[in-house]
Amino acid sequence: MASADRISAIKSSLRVIPNFPKPGIMFQDITTLLLDPKVFKDTVDLFVERYKNENISVVAGIEARGFLFGPSIALAIGAKFVPLRKPKKLPGEVISEKYILEYGSDCLEMHLGAVKSGDRALIVDDLIATGGTVCAAMNLLERAGAEVVECACVIEVPKLKGRERLKSCGVPLYALVES
Amino acid sequence: MASADRISAIKSSLRVIPNFPKPGIMFQDITTLLLDPKVFKDTVDLFVERYKNENISVVAGIEARGFLFGPSIALAIGAKFVPLRKPKKLPGEVISEKYILEYGSDCLEMHLGAVKSGDRALIVDDLIATGGTVCAAMNLLERAGAEVVECACVIEVPKLKGRERLKSCGVPLYALVES
Repeated sequence: MASADRISAIKSSLRVIPNFPKPGIMFQDITTLLLDPKVFKDTVDLFVERYKNENISVVAGIEARGFLFGPSIALAIGAKFVPLRKPKKLPGEVISEKYILEYGSDCLEMHLGAVKSGDRALIVDDLIATGGTVCAAMNLLERAGAEVVECACVIEVPKLKGRERLKSCGVPLYALVES
Repeated sequence: MASADRISAIKSSLRVIPNFPKPGIMFQDITTLLLDPKVFKDTVDLFVERYKNENISVVAGIEARGFLFGPSIALAIGAKFVPLRKPKKLPGEVISEKYILEYGSDCLEMHLGAVKSGDRALIVDDLIATGGTVCAAMNLLERAGAEVVECACVIEVPKLKGRERLKSCGVPLYALVES
């Protein structure tokens, strides 16, 4: 099926939940996409078609919704998968990267030794908002010696300007749909 | 490759982290399995070979490490994927199931409407310990009208007797390795 038809089906499969997790936020829910096996497969296929010849050696998925897409992409392109997790979730030695949120700060961790100098990395998440988490992911990967090729996500929220922020960090963004 | 060789490679790819998340616990870490694309593929393939002709219509993955394997299995067998998450993580209307831990209790949630009467469900997680979380998952799926076919995980810890507990709930367990 042509990309435009698949992307239209992906867009139709998503839903918006108003006021989650707090009043005023229109939450983009990708779990309804996972309920349609054909649309879910199309989503992963679109990423795989884009990255299969890019010599990606590591797919780094951001907890928890990046885990819903990242491992399937890694399997299909023959890359390793590295989970980037919230603090105290990874059992081994980690490197950490703090990042600023609208209120307060958060932190992302990666296992020491999971990524090596010379690795070519793809960052995967379900949605890009302001880009803060992805920039933290990029810093972790670059500190470990990897080159970050791109960040791939299902949904981009253009008004939150994540694409501009990633550009300022030097990471291209590929998103299937805008919302 | 024969199953025994693949299972031996899977076992070798795992590592144990002592005293995580607290003193006395030998944590079975599956993230090292994900670093070897061939072993990761063998892991998913073993599940897919077992379930591809079982008319599974839904794969239910338990947050967060069940997300590392469940979606790939769902994609390969053409089933929908339903995430079972910790409280307040799913944005839509949910049904909840409390369960008892060694100290205190926890809760698992599933989106209302994600699973329908007549669905045939496979539960996926990385590891089965006492089986408490899996029993909660089974209750959620059965309350939604699904038949739970089996619980699939990478690692079973036999001394924690999760298999017996699942048996008492009526759920067969399939684990690739014991630890």
